[in-house]
Amino acid sequence: MNTSLIYELLYKDKRTKARRGRITTPHGVIETPVFMPVGTQATVKAMKPEDVEKTGAQIILANTYHLFLRPGSDIVREAGGLHRFMNWNKPILTDSGGFQVFSLGHMNKITEEGVRFSSHIDGSRHMLSPEKSMEVQNDLGSDIMMAFDECAPPNATRKYIESSQEMTTRWLKRCVAAHKNPDRQALFGIMQGGFFRDLREKSASAITALDLPGYAIGGISVGEPKEEYVGVLEYAPDLLPENKPRYVMGIGTPDYIFEAVEHGVDMFDCVEPTRIARHGVAMTSHGRVNIKNAKYQRDFGPLDPECDCYACRNYSRAYLRHLFKAGETMSHMLLTEHNLRFLSKLSEDIRRSIEEDRFLELKEEFYSKYYG
Amino acid sequence: MNTSLIYELLYKDKRTKARRGRITTPHGVIETPVFMPVGTQATVKAMKPEDVEKTGAQIILANTYHLFLRPGSDIVREAGGLHRFMNWNKPILTDSGGFQVFSLGHMNKITEEGVRFSSHIDGSRHMLSPEKSMEVQNDLGSDIMMAFDECAPPNATRKYIESSQEMTTRWLKRCVAAHKNPDRQALFGIMQGGFFRDLREKSASAITALDLPGYAIGGISVGEPKEEYVGVLEYAPDLLPENKPRYVMGIGTPDYIFEAVEHGVDMFDCVEPTRIARHGVAMTSHGRVNIKNAKYQRDFGPLDPECDCYACRNYSRAYLRHLFKAGETMSHMLLTEHNLRFLSKLSEDIRRSIEEDRFLELKEEFYSKYYG
Repeated sequence: MNTSLIYELLYKDKRTKARRGRITTPHGVIETPVFMPVGTQATVKAMKPEDVEKTGAQIILANTYHLFLRPGSDIVREAGGLHRFMNWNKPILTDSGGFQVFSLGHMNKITEEGVRFSSHIDGSRHMLSPEKSMEVQNDLGSDIMMAFDECAPPNATRKYIESSQEMTTRWLKRCVAAHKNPDRQALFGIMQGGFFRDLREKSASAITALDLPGYAIGGISVGEPKEEYVGVLEYAPDLLPENKPRYVMGIGTPDYIFEAVEHGVDMFDCVEPTRIARHGVAMTSHGRVNIKNAKYQRDFGPLDPECDCYACRNYSRAYLRHLFKAGETMSHMLLTEHNLRFLSKLSEDIRRSIEEDRFLELKEEFYSKYYG
Repeated sequence: MNTSLIYELLYKDKRTKARRGRITTPHGVIETPVFMPVGTQATVKAMKPEDVEKTGAQIILANTYHLFLRPGSDIVREAGGLHRFMNWNKPILTDSGGFQVFSLGHMNKITEEGVRFSSHIDGSRHMLSPEKSMEVQNDLGSDIMMAFDECAPPNATRKYIESSQEMTTRWLKRCVAAHKNPDRQALFGIMQGGFFRDLREKSASAITALDLPGYAIGGISVGEPKEEYVGVLEYAPDLLPENKPRYVMGIGTPDYIFEAVEHGVDMFDCVEPTRIARHGVAMTSHGRVNIKNAKYQRDFGPLDPECDCYACRNYSRAYLRHLFKAGETMSHMLLTEHNLRFLSKLSEDIRRSIEEDRFLELKEEFYSKYYG
């Protein structure tokens, strides 16, 4: 089962649970901790794949829900798989569609079988189930596939979360059984259980028994207060095997990333850097910059003097502001490229700091400049 | 005056007036005939400058009207000029703003002094005049500047066109007087006169007397029937000096380009290739392709099998269709890059055909494939 993915634990920080690792997949190696840019519809918005790679991205994420509905995973399969379809030859991770069915689909109906929903595109009725999610992800040919789970609402009762977590475990077993390509695509299980430690333990125990190539910690990044997020991180990663990669889905702000790494998480993704870019917001070494601000009208310096990205090497804040105000696509292109480089560079800095036993120092330095 | 631009006539076609030439500007050499992509607001929409260059573009056009209103030419000047502001180090041509004042501005009022108008952005009142247009274009620092002219409506009376053409000549003299940087920026005059041959002759006689570095034929590409366009081309280029480049503004369809070249025109520009790209339409060696068409859903071949552009080398029609249907920016990026490559390649083919005395054969071959 594990032949599709190898995780090597290279170095453990002496003072925290931060770890430096390496994942080997059929499409290449991923140094961890790693931030994964999101290419929802088989494209990282406003970026050529070559340019995504130049930012330092080692793996991207694509969304099963979206590609299932459009263009349809059969078309991607006939095109030779997602890597070839979108011209990205490095690793790809696909989510299961579970989260989007709830956040984007309408009139969802959850049963033991799966989830019936109406498409956000045209209202057509569809079903996603463990088997269907595996079929779609097998069609897509991603290097890492995610198990189809129910991400229970954060405000759900303990009773609901418990039965949801139990169903997620039953669904995981159906995913394992339905997965047709375990030699080339690594299936990750997802721990659920909300903010109840005993339910998290129960979930971890059940899913790790299946000896999957990797595991995610689900349900902690959908709008909860940071204390609750950190609260789960205090114990949840330890419930997962040390010799497998650990993934927290949907985090992309520096503080959430630092907390995850500090507690032993290896992988994270988020639409945040690409989405805020399209709203004119950049992440820089001195905090967020809103390029729309009038004070940048005659600012001929780079967006981030400490950044080595294409946008910072070639353009001024005045130009970026002009592009944004003029509604030019190039504004999205340049700010997206910068923000992706920013998080890749942050990941590189974090990896080096772990190797050099100064992860906590890096965290402090970073916070004082970014949030200070 | 002419030190800013050198035109060399390299080769004349034996059977038509087509000519192969070379323009040398402060930012580099332009082989003619040449198609010039349009970068209205200091960016070729959805393209990085490096990628524009890779399509074979030798010079781009930017619009004085737009940059005057936003960000303001003073900001571009303070940024070090348009080349540096937008990171394009090859030649740039700027128009005079005259055409856009009429097509985009509101409540225009034309007097001998110039044109008062309301901004299409915020309704604010502005004045463009020969002096102001020169000031703005001097701020922008383009290699080729266009004289501020009135482009009379095609349906205007002979009386109107005659007095408009006379005013354009007076305005041209004011442009020459106001131009502050003739050693680095070449000012082109614009022939007017509508579809009246004697008025065109009068215009040509007046403007060529000023011995400018180049000339444009104005007012023949704003929606007239093709016969009238070709009708003017039959005699108008001959009214201009042979040792200066000739430019027809606003043409970008292959048939209009072939007709212009056949009658001795060297330069042309149009928003057509970039605009239709954003509507999902590609120019290919076998005619136009509307990528939205359902028949491309499972078409895994390239957009244009005969094209060497980035889009055609790396992506399928099925993928391009998916991107367009999904509303992804990457669709605009790829189709724009393709269409620009198509017209650059067409220009290259035309240049070679003139050198090899087979321009008319190329025209016939092209028409039978593209329009056949």
